[in-house]
Amino acid sequence: MVCTIEITEKPTLNNPILIEGLPGIGFVANISALHLINELKAKRFAQIISASFQDFAVTTDSGGTRSPITELYYVKREDGGRDLIIWYGNTQALTTFGQYELCGKVLDIVQDLGCRLVISIGGFKKDQVQPVPGLYTCATDLETLKEVLDLGTKIMVGHVFGIAGLLVGLARLRNLKGFALLVDTLGMYPDAVATRYALETLGKYLSLKVDLANLDSTADQTKRILDSFGLIRNLAEEKKKEEQAMRWFI
Amino acid sequence: MVCTIEITEKPTLNNPILIEGLPGIGFVANISALHLINELKAKRFAQIISASFQDFAVTTDSGGTRSPITELYYVKREDGGRDLIIWYGNTQALTTFGQYELCGKVLDIVQDLGCRLVISIGGFKKDQVQPVPGLYTCATDLETLKEVLDLGTKIMVGHVFGIAGLLVGLARLRNLKGFALLVDTLGMYPDAVATRYALETLGKYLSLKVDLANLDSTADQTKRILDSFGLIRNLAEEKKKEEQAMRWFI
Amino acid sequence: MVCTIEITEKPTLNNPILIEGLPGIGFVANISALHLINELKAKRFAQIISASFQDFAVTTDSGGTRSPITELYYVKREDGGRDLIIWYGNTQALTTFGQYELCGKVLDIVQDLGCRLVISIGGFKKDQVQPVPGLYTCATDLETLKEVLDLGTKIMVGHVFGIAGLLVGLARLRNLKGFALLVDTLGMYPDAVATRYALETLGKYLSLKVDLANLDSTADQTKRILDSFGLIRNLAEEKKKEEQAMRWFI
Amino acid sequence: MVCTIEITEKPTLNNPILIEGLPGIGFVANISALHLINELKAKRFAQIISASFQDFAVTTDSGGTRSPITELYYVKREDGGRDLIIWYGNTQALTTFGQYELCGKVLDIVQDLGCRLVISIGGFKKDQVQPVPGLYTCATDLETLKEVLDLGTKIMVGHVFGIAGLLVGLARLRNLKGFALLVDTLGMYPDAVATRYALETLGKYLSLKVDLANLDSTADQTKRILDSFGLIRNLAEEKKKEEQAMRWFI
Repeated sequence: MVCTIEITEKPTLNNPILIEGLPGIGFVANISALHLINELKAKRFAQIISASFQDFAVTTDSGGTRSPITELYYVKREDGGRDLIIWYGNTQALTTFGQYELCGKVLDIVQDLGCRLVISIGGFKKDQVQPVPGLYTCATDLETLKEVLDLGTKIMVGHVFGIAGLLVGLARLRNLKGFALLVDTLGMYPDAVATRYALETLGKYLSLKVDLANLDSTADQTKRILDSFGLIRNLAEEKKKEEQAMRWFI
Repeated sequence: MVCTIEITEKPTLNNPILIEGLPGIGFVANISALHLINELKAKRFAQIISASFQDFAVTTDSGGTRSPITELYYVKREDGGRDLIIWYGNTQALTTFGQYELCGKVLDIVQDLGCRLVISIGGFKKDQVQPVPGLYTCATDLETLKEVLDLGTKIMVGHVFGIAGLLVGLARLRNLKGFALLVDTLGMYPDAVATRYALETLGKYLSLKVDLANLDSTADQTKRILDSFGLIRNLAEEKKKEEQAMRWFI
Repeated sequence: MVCTIEITEKPTLNNPILIEGLPGIGFVANISALHLINELKAKRFAQIISASFQDFAVTTDSGGTRSPITELYYVKREDGGRDLIIWYGNTQALTTFGQYELCGKVLDIVQDLGCRLVISIGGFKKDQVQPVPGLYTCATDLETLKEVLDLGTKIMVGHVFGIAGLLVGLARLRNLKGFALLVDTLGMYPDAVATRYALETLGKYLSLKVDLANLDSTADQTKRILDSFGLIRNLAEEKKKEEQAMRWFI
Repeated sequence: MVCTIEITEKPTLNNPILIEGLPGIGFVANISALHLINELKAKRFAQIISASFQDFAVTTDSGGTRSPITELYYVKREDGGRDLIIWYGNTQALTTFGQYELCGKVLDIVQDLGCRLVISIGGFKKDQVQPVPGLYTCATDLETLKEVLDLGTKIMVGHVFGIAGLLVGLARLRNLKGFALLVDTLGMYPDAVATRYALETLGKYLSLKVDLANLDSTADQTKRILDSFGLIRNLAEEKKKEEQAMRWFI
């Protein structure tokens, strides 16, 4: 099966932009995506599970089960702006092979919906973070890069690991446009402060007003979900864990 | 090949329920499944082997060979109750990838036979177990949960690893119903006592009378089979073994 | 690709028997197969390579290259006996997944040629070996078992690892007949003595006369080939090597 | 996906020769390939990415992204010589499985373009290297071997790891001709000196004049690219790294 995809609706979208928000460093992308979904009342239209996810079920407080999963949501904007597709989930794949498969499948789906621009969000792990964290970017092309630099970001130096990097890299190889938006974070907990700066910058890029008043609550919600998956705990115990199992945290 | 499936009969079943009984903690599921097969004279109709099983043959006392395998049995009930499909075997898959494949294939087969409800059984490893061990559950939906809680189980807190968790999780993602039935066990040997409580509760849920007089003998039979596969021994040596090889024991 | 198969000839064979002879403990199977090929002038008709073999080329003394490969040979017997298919090679697959794939493909090919009986040969590693080494067997069915026990073998107790075990196990699951023929060996070098006893017993089973005068020379030839693949050296350094890379030696 | 291939042009070539130039020991092949591409103004016609590459993006100084990738270029010679296909890239695959897949796909593409001869280039790691480094070869056949030995190379003794060995080995199994051209190198940095000798010998074989004046600059260019991928650094830290991640360096 590798990836199992269930598409429940095929929305007609206006020149949509994919925003990636899977768990990663500081959980900046994950909180961002959940906050956009909450605030913009995004509608779920696809779920993608992979045989490269962990093989367990997590229980909820109310006796339900939650599985490793990623989902696609869409937002139809009524302000004339480009529509959004949000890629949200509680995991990345456990192997490089699984990451490529997962990312490839999602790009297949969103390209089919007319998406030609992808944005990945991520934390940039620092030992110390300034009160106003630095924002960084790298892009598929000079034009896109310039647009993002103009928002006050700096050029990213180094590697962008995991889905955040893979998505922009594969987008470029598919002749899509895209950029990564990375923000300084200690990376040790779901970082609402870093997420605020990421979302503000993203909002400017998208000409989109997102109410950030409830952001702390979204960060708490993210923490609870990821906690139940053992992801927060693992982050602290990062060094004891084998590289492969949690490789996309590093 | 990944999974090789041989279906020898395609039974017509009455709204059947899948009961999962592969080896796991305390071998509660495995003894339960074997006991149901023995007592209900379940009929084997499919075998599923996976390239993610171990690559060896085990010899029997009489010079035969036994391979890592899982099988599906069915029980046609004559008391008007829903028919049963029992998933029995001597192994789980060695990798998460293999677990997803295996579980997906079995769900494909049983859904094709009209199954819309799955039950996985498992041990909940405790350092100490009360004379009457605790029973826990998590379910795909509130209605199913309530039914199982009403039988005297408590809400499971934590992860359900391996096939037991994966099956209920994937069932939910496929819009099937299901629950896991977990029972306290030290987990260090095939636990006939824990299995007795699991089977009694399962029997109540299924309105099914299962004679438990021979349960100790079933546990012994399970022990002999798994012993020959090195599974019992491995359980005691658990900590020395690499995580991947026996990962679904932990 | 997983497995790449090249079949250069599709021979018409009389109720053929597959004899497996890939490298393993004491290289008993490997020397046996090569000796049968040499003495019976077996004809190569297929090569099977797998993406689960090692990714290197080995150089020969004369500047040629040799790749990890397995091959199928056939022997048409003119004495009225059943024809033979010999599975020879310089490697097994590096992963359980690869082993299943490889074994499955070979069974597909030989079943297509009418083969309903498989024989795997192997060494049974002992710390000490008697002057006349013990011979052991396990079989897919009682009738075959009895035939092999009648040749002076004893019932094998334990696991048969790697292709030798997998082949007989998968044969049984495919409703083929078959047995493993295992002989005591220290397992530390290509064991011509153990091979002699294996071939004598195999010859009796097949009612086939095989000249064993040149067996030492075949063992030397096997040693040179496997040496160039680093297999002999690895055997001595077994404990230092990671389990996966050379897992089928243990 | 395993391998994703994008072919942007299907050139008509005159009896073309494949020259492999992926990163490896001393980066001799990688510098050679880039130098040939630069000097011969080779034209890119295909890109091959694999799910067995690393899952990250590397940033460039100017804010761009670079992904793990391999590419095919062609050179149409106007001097009547055989045309060239150059396989260039910034990575090999991370697993043996991925290496086989990658190599198989490239052979499929070039065979489709009429290629019947492949050349892999590589470094032969030595603790000490003479001022004039030794050159070694192994070939698919005696005729090809003789041609390469006549250029002053010696017979290679040992294993040829990674794509360099796999390519020649698979070529032989596909009834193509080919050889590996290996040159002594300390292997600790992109070795322009070793590359010079490799290219001079290759030029003689191809009756092709390649200007080597800018070779140091090509080596610097290679160093910068591979540096950004962490490959140069990794080489020095080789022993600390896990075998699998960088296995094709050893």
